[in-house]
Amino acid sequence: MKPRRTVFFVSDRTGITAEMVGRTLLTQFPDVEFHKHTLPFVDTLERVREAVKTINETARLEDHRPIVLSTLTNDDVREALYACNGLCLDLFAGFINRLEDELGMESSHALGLSHGMGDELAYQKRIDAINYALAHDDGLITANYHLADVILIGVSRAGKTPTCLYLAMQYGIRAANYPLTPDDFERGDLPKPLQPHRERLYGLTINPERLTRIRNERKPDSRYASLENCRKEIDVANTMMGKAGLRILDTTTKSVEEIAISILHDTGLMERVQR
Amino acid sequence: MKPRRTVFFVSDRTGITAEMVGRTLLTQFPDVEFHKHTLPFVDTLERVREAVKTINETARLEDHRPIVLSTLTNDDVREALYACNGLCLDLFAGFINRLEDELGMESSHALGLSHGMGDELAYQKRIDAINYALAHDDGLITANYHLADVILIGVSRAGKTPTCLYLAMQYGIRAANYPLTPDDFERGDLPKPLQPHRERLYGLTINPERLTRIRNERKPDSRYASLENCRKEIDVANTMMGKAGLRILDTTTKSVEEIAISILHDTGLMERVQR
Repeated sequence: MKPRRTVFFVSDRTGITAEMVGRTLLTQFPDVEFHKHTLPFVDTLERVREAVKTINETARLEDHRPIVLSTLTNDDVREALYACNGLCLDLFAGFINRLEDELGMESSHALGLSHGMGDELAYQKRIDAINYALAHDDGLITANYHLADVILIGVSRAGKTPTCLYLAMQYGIRAANYPLTPDDFERGDLPKPLQPHRERLYGLTINPERLTRIRNERKPDSRYASLENCRKEIDVANTMMGKAGLRILDTTTKSVEEIAISILHDTGLMERVQR
Repeated sequence: MKPRRTVFFVSDRTGITAEMVGRTLLTQFPDVEFHKHTLPFVDTLERVREAVKTINETARLEDHRPIVLSTLTNDDVREALYACNGLCLDLFAGFINRLEDELGMESSHALGLSHGMGDELAYQKRIDAINYALAHDDGLITANYHLADVILIGVSRAGKTPTCLYLAMQYGIRAANYPLTPDDFERGDLPKPLQPHRERLYGLTINPERLTRIRNERKPDSRYASLENCRKEIDVANTMMGKAGLRILDTTTKSVEEIAISILHDTGLMERVQR
């Protein structure tokens, strides 16, 4: 039986960063069964007292002390948390000291700004980009392609839609997508609505075995989902995208996040979203 | 003039974690202008040599050494990176040591699993949830509400759609949303399709001043966007949701991430997604 440990992610904001870093750290210990709890919005001494109570209750009931991974920017709140009966590791504290030394100035000790609304204009840009992605999903509307930062093309279920939404949500990138369908294949050339926007196009491909699995979940035993048809569609699509000189990314073993990051890098959009 | 420093986020995967943590750390120093670059997929000695070359080139050209924030799990890769002429801080390394001590075992030193496909089943669940959110956006289809983990309701532009997409993408939560419109207000009771699903409903509200700003971006000078109409809609919607005994969250100053986390906590879904 795997040893079992309880982990608390404690944050003065959403806890998303604490969870993300914490989960990655914990994956380094596959032989332990971790029970995870997030305590978000711990931004006052009252909230931290509640958190300490929860952690101490767990410490009392279990054989091992809980592990507490925090991202707290307020020194008083962090100090109060550290009085609990768990192993406390703050994911920010040490680095803030190192950066203070390097930069020769004190940190603001302000609440973390990530995952908040931050700059309202930048936030509005993300929301607008989501609306753009929804309106320009699946080749629905092709009129506003000149406003797209990138237009993803590829066969149905190659990963276009989730990637567009992710690019919009996380980076405020206006991403449209256009499915290559058997109709397009007969003509052999890039579909008409795409032709004026060659420099914005980015191709996604996928291996036929994975595509047939994905499509079978949606439309079991259909011609659409058959391995033979998937093979043929992918083959024709790759030829078409290659002839058009497009960059083509294989999404077979990639997550939405990995596809998105690759696109940002390949297109140079990464430099823009980092300004 | 603000001092200017160049920062590199270096990762063996997407760099999303390095960026997220790094950005939060850097917001603690608002008086410095940071120029940020992400070097993702640095997972071989060849890739790390390229990264070191890029960093050293910057070090040569600038007055101050670059700051290098990395999330590297392979010791050899990290060691090779640390030979560069920048200030290197690895966001994982110290914590892995501390956890090894606490858990009494060595870490796997495997590549970070976050942001990858990880468990294919869990990944497929996220993709399915995105498709569910798209199909059940804006009250489009109401037939499959019994499959929803949560159904967000509220006036148009209160934040329902981006929140549903975020819940799906990040957590694999099936979230539908249903807009409360003037038609619903006349009847005064919860819309028919929602009535059998009271336990899944979650209300979003927003302040009228912010709503009128958001709506004016979309439909300038319309009755729909007018402050008077926004006030009235919100007022009636709040009454209706309150009468139905729903939990209501004010989204006015909250980001999509903050809304999503609050919903996960209020509904108890957080415990499920953390298993």
